[in-house]
Amino acid sequence: MGMLQLMSILPSSIQKVIEELTKLPGIGPKSAERLTFHLLRSRRASPEGLGKALSELKKDLQYCTVCQMVTVRERCMVCDDASRDRGMVLVVEEPLEVVAFERTTYQGVYHVLHGVLSPIDGMGPEQLRIKELIDRCASGEIREVIIATDPDTEGEATAVYLQQKLKDIVPSITRLAHGLPMGADIEFADQVTLGEALKGRRTL
Amino acid sequence: MGMLQLMSILPSSIQKVIEELTKLPGIGPKSAERLTFHLLRSRRASPEGLGKALSELKKDLQYCTVCQMVTVRERCMVCDDASRDRGMVLVVEEPLEVVAFERTTYQGVYHVLHGVLSPIDGMGPEQLRIKELIDRCASGEIREVIIATDPDTEGEATAVYLQQKLKDIVPSITRLAHGLPMGADIEFADQVTLGEALKGRRTL
Repeated sequence: MGMLQLMSILPSSIQKVIEELTKLPGIGPKSAERLTFHLLRSRRASPEGLGKALSELKKDLQYCTVCQMVTVRERCMVCDDASRDRGMVLVVEEPLEVVAFERTTYQGVYHVLHGVLSPIDGMGPEQLRIKELIDRCASGEIREVIIATDPDTEGEATAVYLQQKLKDIVPSITRLAHGLPMGADIEFADQVTLGEALKGRRTL
Repeated sequence: MGMLQLMSILPSSIQKVIEELTKLPGIGPKSAERLTFHLLRSRRASPEGLGKALSELKKDLQYCTVCQMVTVRERCMVCDDASRDRGMVLVVEEPLEVVAFERTTYQGVYHVLHGVLSPIDGMGPEQLRIKELIDRCASGEIREVIIATDPDTEGEATAVYLQQKLKDIVPSITRLAHGLPMGADIEFADQVTLGEALKGRRTL
């Protein structure tokens, strides 16, 4: 289609923003065009405001030396909080999942893998923060590791791998419960979820 | 919900990007979070690349003194092209619509209004580049003005307004044809479009 050639009537600064936005997931050329012109015209959003925020995104950003969460200090807020239970480690794939669990009443600490095992995408154990988790567990302070990888193929494979690596150094390794999500309609639940909900039934 | 408070575990540089992205149309808090972490991790997209492009978006940007198209020179590429028919002016709402018409075989020139009449949004004739269009037409060089505002309420109102303003100074004022889009299914066409397609029927 030669989109860039056809677009050459647009100033290159506009084309450049469209091009960069198109690299983002879920943003096609048409959305990128609309977002760019919105930024040029909007009073609320501004290209300078977003541009400055992006330029400074990685500034001072580092990984917590304990749990690998993104942070601006050596230790993240959770690892720094003496009131948290450091004997309980919840293992997640991504930093955003820590944000999600922080909305619950969970009082333990975390470990962020920064991905899942996925040979197709070139993600082996070395690409994840697995060695750091093993070292943490080897210190002997951890009673329980809760593996909270996603309940999909890669997440399950990662959970099994971690279980193998940690079973001799951690007293208890658990996995998040599967079952019906709150508010779900049993009628529309898939058979695997229903089967798991049955297996995991609890006495009232 | 106090999203910002709940998110305070995330470094402020990350929160700032999420906040700025949320100002864009069609991007909610969840998409903004995902886009931000994608930018942190992706090898293809980078916060610095997009940030730099955005910071430079308005640099050198100006409006063509003839047709009001965005450009980096005094006149845009179309107005500067001696082979274009300067007696025919296609009036559009937005710069992106010029890009769309440049994909057709149109050989005339353009006029970009930068919006449509919309009293609710505070868009009156003074907010649009209508005076510039009238001045252009008053020069006497223009044979035909093709009004290509969108076929919706504001676009139609703007077309009627322009027709009133230009009828005494331009020999011919036309409007884009309404009818079935190419490849359309007559079965699924709305009644207004079908009615317009009937009214505008042509002899084969």
